[in-house]
Formats: sequence, C-alpha cells, structure tokens
Amino acid sequence: MSVKPGRFITLEGGEGAGKSTQIKRLVVALQGLGLEVVQTREPGGTPGAEAIRGLLVTGDTARWEADTEALLHYAARAEHVAKTVKPALSRGAWVVSDRFADSTMAYQGYAGQVGRERIAALHKLVLGDFQPDLTLILDLPVAEGLRRAGARASATGSNEDRYERMGLQFHEALRAAFLDIAKREPGRCQVVDAAGDPDSVAVALWAGLAARFNLAA
Amino acid sequence: MSVKPGRFITLEGGEGAGKSTQIKRLVVALQGLGLEVVQTREPGGTPGAEAIRGLLVTGDTARWEADTEALLHYAARAEHVAKTVKPALSRGAWVVSDRFADSTMAYQGYAGQVGRERIAALHKLVLGDFQPDLTLILDLPVAEGLRRAGARASATGSNEDRYERMGLQFHEALRAAFLDIAKREPGRCQVVDAAGDPDSVAVALWAGLAARFNLAA
Repeated sequence: MSVKPGRFITLEGGEGAGKSTQIKRLVVALQGLGLEVVQTREPGGTPGAEAIRGLLVTGDTARWEADTEALLHYAARAEHVAKTVKPALSRGAWVVSDRFADSTMAYQGYAGQVGRERIAALHKLVLGDFQPDLTLILDLPVAEGLRRAGARASATGSNEDRYERMGLQFHEALRAAFLDIAKREPGRCQVVDAAGDPDSVAVALWAGLAARFNLAA
Repeated sequence: MSVKPGRFITLEGGEGAGKSTQIKRLVVALQGLGLEVVQTREPGGTPGAEAIRGLLVTGDTARWEADTEALLHYAARAEHVAKTVKPALSRGAWVVSDRFADSTMAYQGYAGQVGRERIAALHKLVLGDFQPDLTLILDLPVAEGLRRAGARASATGSNEDRYERMGLQFHEALRAAFLDIAKREPGRCQVVDAAGDPDSVAVALWAGLAARFNLAA
C-alpha cells in the first residue's frame, strides 16, 4: 500500500507579522491530530541552506546585486526542497515552512529589482510546477509589523535584520505584493488578518487550514 | 569621444592545468602593451562572490544538490559580472578571468547532474547573451593535472580542493566537456596544450591571443 503523501503548508507575510509565533501553534495543533509534522523555514531548512541564509539575512541592505540575491534564495530553496520538504512529504509527513517561494516573488520580484517574470522563470527552471498545497498570508499594516520586528530584534539580539532595515516604501510594496499574489492564486492562498492578538490570529489560521483539508475545527 | 570597450578573456580547464600561473603572465604581457588589465577569478571576483566561493570550493564533495551548486555559481557570477567585469570593460580595461561560465557548463552541465540544457537556460536567464570575447582552454591529461593540483595543495596548504577530490571519472568527463565546448564554439574558444613547461605554454597562449586581437606577437 502506498503512503498517503503529506501536505505542504507555507506561512508568508512581511516583517513582524507573527509567522514564528503562529507556526509553532500550527505545528502543535497538527500534531494533536496524530500527524507527523516537519517545521522548517526559508531561507534555510538544511545545514547548507542555513549557511546560504547567513549571506542573505545579515549585513548591508545593498550588499547583493538583485539577481544574485534571487539566485541565492533559489540555491537555498533547491537544497531545502530536495533534502527536507520532498522526502518528508513522500513519507506522509506534513511540512510547515516559515516562508517559501512567494517571499522571493514578493521581496525580489515585486518590491525588488528582478521583476516578476524573471522570478517566475527562475522558479519554473529550478522547481517546475512544485508549489505549496496551502499558503497562509499574514497581513498587517507596515508600521505595526516593523514595530513588532524591531521589538523582537531588541529582545533577542538577533542580527538577522537585513530585510527589516530596507525602507518603508519597500515594505509597503511587499505588503501589496503578498495581497496581489493571494488575489491571483485564491485556490492556494488565504489572507489572514494578523493585527489581532496571537490567540485570535491562531483561530483564524486554523479555521482556514481546517476548511482547506477537511480537518476537525 | 566614446571609450573603446575592453576585451573579456577567460582561462578554462580542469584542475592543475596551470591557469593561475599562466594568467599572471598574460596580465603582465597585456600591461606591457599599455593596457589597463583587471585580473579576476570565479567563483569570486567581488567580496560577496568570494563569500559564495567559500561555500563551493571547500567541504564534502557531496555537500550540495546539483541544482544548488549551479545556482550558487550563477549567484556569484551575476555579482562578478555586474560589479567587476562589466564596469571594467566599459571603461576600456581588459579583463582576464580564471574560469567563467564554461566551467559551470563543464562541471555541473556535462560532468555533473544538472544537464547542459538547464545550465544553458540558467545562463540565458541570468546573463542573456553575455560571453567572453576569447576563451583559452588549457588541456592536459587528467592524471597529470591531478598530480600537479595535489602538489600545489600540499605546497600551499589550501583547503580549496572540493572539486579536486571528485572522482577520476568526473575529471575525465570534465576534460571531454571542455574539448566539446571548444569544438562547438570555435570562434570564441581556443584549446592550448598545457602539458609542456610553463614557458612554452605561455608562448602558445600568447600566440592565440595576439592572433585573435591583432596584437604584437
């Protein structure tokens, strides 16, 4: 008997939208249904991809050419999909990733200099038609997201703030990008209002997920 | 009056073919003609691309997925071309690079797992039709090249030997790849026998270059 393949769920959104907090709760909820769940993130998710992450999320905001940055994200993604995501799905596990290809489309395609067509061509070349089964987009006004992200950075002392330090205009473009992606792919994407407290956001996320996969609410 | 653009010359070949030795002599010879010459290398040639190089030329031979490796090379190349090669050519300098795109085609396209068509598509997506004006391919029997590369590694203590440690079959495929590339693009590529002593190889290289650009022999 063949194993029923798992599901690939991604969380997307701008800086400070609460993805890390919500992903932990999602994983616990899915595990509560008896599923094997793999929690992962991008850029990263394998030792090699985490090394590439180091080049992307730290340092000067202008350190990379736009094309280089997109290629580094897809280099890490190819590693992550081949070594972590696909093997887990094949054995029936559910994979929940903090960011995936929509982030490259939003950050480098819409808000950055690469353009949407070239990001789409790069995705097609590297991953073909591979996409998440469900993408939950956490939406938040930019000012509130950056406030939360700044507070988190102060609390944790993390230097992974290269994208946070990009200008306000960049972050506004990013928010609009995620909303546009959701509008273009309503079958895969769900936008969730992330402005409320963590409990109410978690309820809204779970409602979207349960409806999509016919799980217990 | 517009500046006469410079020329882009690349040296290619397997491990231990003598590219580093020969490139220094080429640069001195070109400078002797009063030209501004930029000597560079791949992967590398900018601070960012050198950081990516560190991920590629050290560590376990199997550390990367084939696609990841090709994408990392093109990430570094996009950086190198935009920040070093094109600006130099625009101001009229001649650029001499130790390796360029033919290495990715040979290592990851022919000898590796990515395939020639996908490397060609990646090149087209990232760099369009950009290619060297002249590519000098140093050709050497594999056993002799690996002997020389091993002696160099012992002498310098370098740990940049990830590709050297790939198997003999890989290096045979690599040699055949460079010869095939030269056969397919005879207008751009010249094969030079690298088995002789450095002086005679330098003479052969210079003869090829002088003929191509109508320089003093």
